[in-house]
Amino acid sequence: MDAIVWKSHQLDLLDQRQLPFSTTYLTCTTADSVAQAIRDMVVRGAPAIGVSAMYGLVLAIQNDPSRSSFERACQVLAAARPTAVNLFDAIQHMTSALQDWDWSQNPSERAEAIARAYHQDDLHKNYALAKWGAGFLPGIRRVLTHCNTGSLATSGFGTALGIVRQLHREKRLDQVFADETRPYLQGARLTQWECQQEKIPCTLVTDGMGGYLMSEGMVDCVIVGADRIAANGDTANKVGTFMLAMAANYHGIPFIVAAPSTTLDRATPSGAGIPIEQRPSSEITSVFGHPIVPADSAVFNPAFDITPGELVTAIVTEDGVFQPPYAFGK
Amino acid sequence: MDAIVWKSHQLDLLDQRQLPFSTTYLTCTTADSVAQAIRDMVVRGAPAIGVSAMYGLVLAIQNDPSRSSFERACQVLAAARPTAVNLFDAIQHMTSALQDWDWSQNPSERAEAIARAYHQDDLHKNYALAKWGAGFLPGIRRVLTHCNTGSLATSGFGTALGIVRQLHREKRLDQVFADETRPYLQGARLTQWECQQEKIPCTLVTDGMGGYLMSEGMVDCVIVGADRIAANGDTANKVGTFMLAMAANYHGIPFIVAAPSTTLDRATPSGAGIPIEQRPSSEITSVFGHPIVPADSAVFNPAFDITPGELVTAIVTEDGVFQPPYAFGK
Repeated sequence: MDAIVWKSHQLDLLDQRQLPFSTTYLTCTTADSVAQAIRDMVVRGAPAIGVSAMYGLVLAIQNDPSRSSFERACQVLAAARPTAVNLFDAIQHMTSALQDWDWSQNPSERAEAIARAYHQDDLHKNYALAKWGAGFLPGIRRVLTHCNTGSLATSGFGTALGIVRQLHREKRLDQVFADETRPYLQGARLTQWECQQEKIPCTLVTDGMGGYLMSEGMVDCVIVGADRIAANGDTANKVGTFMLAMAANYHGIPFIVAAPSTTLDRATPSGAGIPIEQRPSSEITSVFGHPIVPADSAVFNPAFDITPGELVTAIVTEDGVFQPPYAFGK
Repeated sequence: MDAIVWKSHQLDLLDQRQLPFSTTYLTCTTADSVAQAIRDMVVRGAPAIGVSAMYGLVLAIQNDPSRSSFERACQVLAAARPTAVNLFDAIQHMTSALQDWDWSQNPSERAEAIARAYHQDDLHKNYALAKWGAGFLPGIRRVLTHCNTGSLATSGFGTALGIVRQLHREKRLDQVFADETRPYLQGARLTQWECQQEKIPCTLVTDGMGGYLMSEGMVDCVIVGADRIAANGDTANKVGTFMLAMAANYHGIPFIVAAPSTTLDRATPSGAGIPIEQRPSSEITSVFGHPIVPADSAVFNPAFDITPGELVTAIVTEDGVFQPPYAFGK
């Protein structure tokens, strides 16, 4: 099931808030509605956000093929979510491609071709990085992962979960443990659902259980995705990732970050320069709309954390496997 | 609000499964019903389990003042939950106290007096360890805690949360961050509720956020309770505790375990000897009865983990503050 379906003049997004109990698509016909869908997490996952934003720009141009309409759409989409750098990479990519465009001509076809290529390109990056990752991990049969980094979070196949898929295809995987990933439960709702579709053996655990799994020798490796990787390898990813990295480090277990090169933020020297999005408290105080604590409870809800590059055993992109010291700067 | 209310021939237990939305008491009049309440987590928290078991033994004797009835009740209660050693401490305490009893005489009054004293004693241990802990932590104003270790988990006041209360009373507390503590949400449902009752500033976070809080300099100290502490300081506590200990260690932040001496298992050399309870998968697959994933999802649900003594900065009991190397053996 594709999370992002482009239909010439509309973008259909699988509403990931309803998974795994309902598979419905939300149709977007404007850049504003795509931005809203990104903000509301109808679509999520750094690469998927980038691809969706691309199509949002196409819709803006189709609806009003003027430079001002395009520039406004760039601003609206860039403001949708702050942490995933793929969003900005996508906007930058389209902006560069149309830089010398004569706006007295309608750029709709050109923009659509660029977006389609970007979409396809992301998928191929997934395949490539999954092979690099699987090749780098001989003997790894039991993987712990966090959040959702599969086909729902990307153009298909996945990043961290792409490596898991690749290991499974090569019959080298015994088990993946999926952190449920509170508050939004991407692991419980999405990763386990994706694994069930492909019959990948997946066991759900809560976010606090990783340390126990490692101490019991039940995990060979941690593999996660990324929302933004700074030049020094500091990695922003779903909150809880950093805890796993420290636990893996304590146990001497490899901690792998998998992401397309579009997730590298070469202009940001370290994690200190990565903005961390604060999400609404309702994500914590209720689950699927059911309150678990009084709604007026004081809550802190950072969506991401930063794992220092020093804790990252390897960063896998479509270009290969990078190991410390990381130097992704321009 | 007392979690454990003894009324001469019945034990009223605050049904903690319903908190914070409903405060109802479950009445137990037999040892079997007390064991069931412990198993079902109507009452939880190692010290509270121990005290409840004591009253369960009193009920058994009141209902049938024979040695065989008593011994059967000991077995039933001991089987209720495997990890918290306080349960076994309580049973051992009553067994020792009645060792030379002439069972042709009814021991009900004697047993009730022993249970009441044990109950009171636990409360006084809480007060004492809270003062030891607060005294050991000068300058600590922002505390991160896990699970619930307050009056609901003990005979009153609390262990880790007792220290937090003491700091608050001494006007030395700015903020406590409470891990929501999946899957059972003791932090979200119980700790925050307790703090609200006493106007202790408490902010709820998910279990994966501790690392982020530490990296942002938002936490001075982690304080947790314990379900069993081995002779070498290895500590069994609610799953997720070990992750916090590794994170605190990485950041050079004190990691404190607070528990009455009844939680020390002097006969068990290390954490390897502590049984870890596996709980039903439904605790993870649904929240307050609402499914979050398909019920047939593969789930792993260990209720506790073991934090190695080497990661524990100090263990605080009513007898004082212990620091490594720990040697609680007999």
